[in-house]
Amino acid sequence: MTAAHPHPSMPDYARNAWYVAAWSHELAAEKPFAITILGEPVVIWRSASGALNALEDRCVHRLAPLSLGRCEGERLRCMYHGLLFGADGKVVEIPGQELIPTHARVKRYAVVERHSWLWVWMGDAEAADPALIPPAVGLDDPDYILGHGHLDYAAEARLINDNLLDFSHLSYVHATSFGAGPQFAQSLPKVTPLARGVRFERWTTDTQGVNIRKTDGPVDSFQSYDFLVPGILLMWSAHYPVGTAAALDFGPPDPAKAIGALNFTSQAVTPLTERTSRYFFSWGPHCRHGDAELRDRMMAIADIAFGEDKVMIEAQQRVIDGTRDPRIMPTSHDRGVTLFNRLVKKMAGQDGTPESAALDAAE
Amino acid sequence: MTAAHPHPSMPDYARNAWYVAAWSHELAAEKPFAITILGEPVVIWRSASGALNALEDRCVHRLAPLSLGRCEGERLRCMYHGLLFGADGKVVEIPGQELIPTHARVKRYAVVERHSWLWVWMGDAEAADPALIPPAVGLDDPDYILGHGHLDYAAEARLINDNLLDFSHLSYVHATSFGAGPQFAQSLPKVTPLARGVRFERWTTDTQGVNIRKTDGPVDSFQSYDFLVPGILLMWSAHYPVGTAAALDFGPPDPAKAIGALNFTSQAVTPLTERTSRYFFSWGPHCRHGDAELRDRMMAIADIAFGEDKVMIEAQQRVIDGTRDPRIMPTSHDRGVTLFNRLVKKMAGQDGTPESAALDAAE
Amino acid sequence: MTAAHPHPSMPDYARNAWYVAAWSHELAAEKPFAITILGEPVVIWRSASGALNALEDRCVHRLAPLSLGRCEGERLRCMYHGLLFGADGKVVEIPGQELIPTHARVKRYAVVERHSWLWVWMGDAEAADPALIPPAVGLDDPDYILGHGHLDYAAEARLINDNLLDFSHLSYVHATSFGAGPQFAQSLPKVTPLARGVRFERWTTDTQGVNIRKTDGPVDSFQSYDFLVPGILLMWSAHYPVGTAAALDFGPPDPAKAIGALNFTSQAVTPLTERTSRYFFSWGPHCRHGDAELRDRMMAIADIAFGEDKVMIEAQQRVIDGTRDPRIMPTSHDRGVTLFNRLVKKMAGQDGTPESAALDAAE
Repeated sequence: MTAAHPHPSMPDYARNAWYVAAWSHELAAEKPFAITILGEPVVIWRSASGALNALEDRCVHRLAPLSLGRCEGERLRCMYHGLLFGADGKVVEIPGQELIPTHARVKRYAVVERHSWLWVWMGDAEAADPALIPPAVGLDDPDYILGHGHLDYAAEARLINDNLLDFSHLSYVHATSFGAGPQFAQSLPKVTPLARGVRFERWTTDTQGVNIRKTDGPVDSFQSYDFLVPGILLMWSAHYPVGTAAALDFGPPDPAKAIGALNFTSQAVTPLTERTSRYFFSWGPHCRHGDAELRDRMMAIADIAFGEDKVMIEAQQRVIDGTRDPRIMPTSHDRGVTLFNRLVKKMAGQDGTPESAALDAAE
Repeated sequence: MTAAHPHPSMPDYARNAWYVAAWSHELAAEKPFAITILGEPVVIWRSASGALNALEDRCVHRLAPLSLGRCEGERLRCMYHGLLFGADGKVVEIPGQELIPTHARVKRYAVVERHSWLWVWMGDAEAADPALIPPAVGLDDPDYILGHGHLDYAAEARLINDNLLDFSHLSYVHATSFGAGPQFAQSLPKVTPLARGVRFERWTTDTQGVNIRKTDGPVDSFQSYDFLVPGILLMWSAHYPVGTAAALDFGPPDPAKAIGALNFTSQAVTPLTERTSRYFFSWGPHCRHGDAELRDRMMAIADIAFGEDKVMIEAQQRVIDGTRDPRIMPTSHDRGVTLFNRLVKKMAGQDGTPESAALDAAE
Repeated sequence: MTAAHPHPSMPDYARNAWYVAAWSHELAAEKPFAITILGEPVVIWRSASGALNALEDRCVHRLAPLSLGRCEGERLRCMYHGLLFGADGKVVEIPGQELIPTHARVKRYAVVERHSWLWVWMGDAEAADPALIPPAVGLDDPDYILGHGHLDYAAEARLINDNLLDFSHLSYVHATSFGAGPQFAQSLPKVTPLARGVRFERWTTDTQGVNIRKTDGPVDSFQSYDFLVPGILLMWSAHYPVGTAAALDFGPPDPAKAIGALNFTSQAVTPLTERTSRYFFSWGPHCRHGDAELRDRMMAIADIAFGEDKVMIEAQQRVIDGTRDPRIMPTSHDRGVTLFNRLVKKMAGQDGTPESAALDAAE
C-alpha cells in the first residue's frame, strides 16, 4: 500500500480509563457512530438486539471506516468491499473468498451505557472494569433537573483538564458570566488526592452568593468537586445557614441539609486527536431547589461561560504551538493540576505508553 | 532565496506514461492552463498558430507560475518580470538584460490532444510515444452518445485506482445507485495481465440486468474493461441472448452482436499532488442502443455513484493518514489491484524513481 | 506541560530593526492589541496614562495570551488566572500566592509611535534606538494628502521585499493598473547602497507620464525610493521640465522645483510568521500638486495594483513550497534585491541568528 504517513502523536493519557464517547441519545438504533478517541478511530453501534458494541473503525482489508458500514443483525458490514465483522471484531465473511485468515480482525473496545453517556475503555477490553466508571448524574436522575450539551475544542484535552483543575480562573475568565469576584482567586480550596483523581472543597462564608444564585440574606456556601481520570468533573454546591462552615470545622456538609441552591454538574473531557477534544456537560438544580425555568437560566449562563473557556484555551493552544520550548510556571493554585497530571502520567507509564520528558520538566 | 521547504513526496507512479491533464475543451485559445501532475506544476497553452505546448509552470528567475503569464505568438511571457519563453522551454528574452544564460530554460513536456483529452507525458519528452496513449473513446466518436465530467479528490490517486481495479465494491458502495446485488461480489471476474495494464472480463448469465438497464426477459450480460497505466479505465458492456456465454465458453463476445445495452465509459485518474487527484469520466450508450435521453439518465446515476466513491475513498484516506503503520490485507478480489500496482512499481523503478519499501511490505 | 511542538522556523530577518506593528489609530486606549512579528507573539497597549507598551504576548504561568487581558492603570492583567504584569514585563501579582519568583517576567519590547505607525524593535529593548526609525511620512503630515491601508499576505515577507526591490515588475504585473510600458523594464534604475538599505533613482525623459499622471505636453519624470531594513519603502516622484534630467547630469532634482505630480508613498512589510506577512501602505499627492479627489483616484489604482502583487506573490509562494530545492536565477534587475538581502543576511548574522546556507547558494 502506501508508505507510512505522519501520525498524530498523542500526549500521555491514561489508556486504562473510561472515556465519554457520546451522549447515549446520540446513538440511533443500528446506525454506526464514529468517534476518534486518543487518536484511535472507534465505531460504536447498537445491534438489532439492542447490544452496544465498539470496534476499531478501520477495515482490515483496505482501511475504510466501518462507520460508513451497515448493521446486519449483531454484525457490522464494511460497505467498501463487503467484509462482515462480528461484535468481537473478527471477520466472519469476505465476499468472493472462502478462507478467512485468523488475523482478520479489528480491535474490540469495551463500551458501556451509563449516566446517559456512552463510555469506552481505551485499554485492553478484557481488563475493562465498569466499577471504575465515575458516578456522574444522568439526565434521567429523578433528583436533578438537568440541561446538557457538548462543545468541540481545537485544543488538546490536557489544557481543558488543567482549566477544570484550577477554578481560580472563575475570577477572570468568567468575571461577568459566573460572576465570582477577585476574592475567590485569592483563597485556596482544600485539595485532597483520590485513588483516581483529586477532590476540591471550598466554603465561602457569610456571602450573598453570585448571579442567579444570589440570596436575600447572608449564607455559607459550599462547593465540592471530584476530578477523575480520564477527565471527569462531578460537582455539587449548595447554601447553608451562616455558621455552618465553622460548626463543621470547614468539613463537608450534608447535601440533604442545604437550605438553597443545591445543584449538580457532570462534565467530561475526551481527547479526540492530539489537538482536538470534545467537552460534554450537564448542569441543573436539585428538584427541591429549582425547576426547569431555573435550569434554563443556569444553562444560558453556562453556554456563555463555556464559550469563554473555549476562547481562552484555544488561544492558549495557539500560543503553545508557536512556542519552541513551552514551559509553564506553576502557582499555588496549581496543586490540583499537578496532582492530577502526575497521576495521569503514572497511569500512562503503567499502561506502557512512553512518558514525555517535557512533562517532567514542566510540571 | 529561501531555504528548502517540505516538498510533497509523491508515492511511486510511472513517469513514462500519458496522464490526462484536462478535457480539451477546457483549454481556451492563448489562455494558459495550470495543472499539477505528480506534484509538478505544468502550464499548457495553445499558441496563436494553434500549436499545443506544455512547460514546467515555474519561471527560472524567481519561480513565479508561467500560467499567470501572457501568450505572445508561439511564446509565453512570465508576467512577473517579463521573461519570455519559447515553446521548447528556453528563455528568449530577459527585459533589461542582453545576455541570456544557456541554463535559462524550464522543462518541456510532451503534450497531445486525443480522444477529447489533453495527455501529458511525465517522463523525458524525447521518449514520449503517442502510440502509448490508451484508446479512449472521445466525445466526438460517432458510435457513442457520451456525457462527461470530472471530480476532484482529497485523496491519493492510488486509492482511486485500487477502487477501479476491484469492482466488488459495486455490491456495497453502489448497492442502490448502480444496483449490483451481493451476488456480484460473490463471483470473480476473469483477470488477464496486459503489457501496460490489466483486463477484466465477466459474464453474468440468465440475468434481467440492473436499474435502467433492466430487461423484460432474461439475457446474458458481458462486461469488460482494461485498466491501463497510469490510471485509465476503458470499459464496455452489453446484453446477449441467454446461452451466448456458454456458447462462447465464457470468452469475449462481439460487441456488434449485442442485443441491447451496449455502452462505453472512459475514465482517467490523474495524481495531482501526494494527497489530491482529478478523476475524468465519460459514459453513454452506443447510438444503436440508446439516445441522449438515456445518456442523461445514465449520467445522473453516475454522478450519484461517483459521489459515493468519493465519500468512501476520502474517508479511507483520512483513516490511512491517522494510522501509524498502515497495512492492508488483500482478498481474492485484489488480484487485479496487485497485478496493476506491481506493474506500476516496476515501471516506477525502471524510471529511476526510488521504490517504496512499504509498498513491498503491504502488497 | 506538553512536549515541544513544531515551531515555525523564521527565515533570516534582522532583529535589530524597527518593524511596523500597526497603524497607530488601530490601537484603542486600554485595549490590548495582538500581533505576531518574526513568529513572536507581541501585545501592545496604551495604559491609562497614555503610555505605549509592548510585551511578549504569552503569560509565564500557562502561556495564555496577555492580549486577551485587561488594562489596569499602567499594568496589564492576564485574564486566565489573573497574573498582573508591569509595563517592564515583571509579574507584580499572583492571585492566591504571596511570593513572586524573580524569573516571573515576560520579554519587553521597545515600541514607538511615529509617522502614524507603531514601530516595535525586535532586538534587545535596551539597544533600541529611535533614531533608526525610517523617515516615513505620517498621515498627519501637512505637506501630503494621503490615503492608507494594509493587506495580509499568505507569503513570506522576503518575497514582498523582493517585489518592492525590483520595479521592473511594473511593466508586467501592473501593465494595465499603474500602466508602465515595457520600455520601463528595459532600462535599469541607478542603485546605490545605503547604510541600512538601498536607494533607487530613475529619470524618464521626454515622457507624457502614465495613467492619471498623464501630462498634456512632454516632461522629464523622476522617481526615487529608499528601501530600508527591515522592509520600509519610502518613495517620491514628480515631473520636471524637459531637459532637467540632462541639466542635472541625471542626478536627483529638488522636489520643491517639481512642476507637477509630486507625490509620496510609505510602505512597510512586516513578517508575521514564516509564511504570513502584513503590508502597510499610504500614498497621495503633495498638497500643491493634488487634492483629496486625486488621492482617492490614486488609491483606487493602488488597491488594484497591490491586489495584483498579492495574486502573483502568493502564487509564487505556492510554487516555491512545492519545489524540492528552490533556486533562483538573478537578472540585471536584481542588483537591488541582492544588495538588500545581503545586508539583511549580514545583520541577521550579527544578531546571532543562524544564517541560512540556502540563501548563500541562491543569492
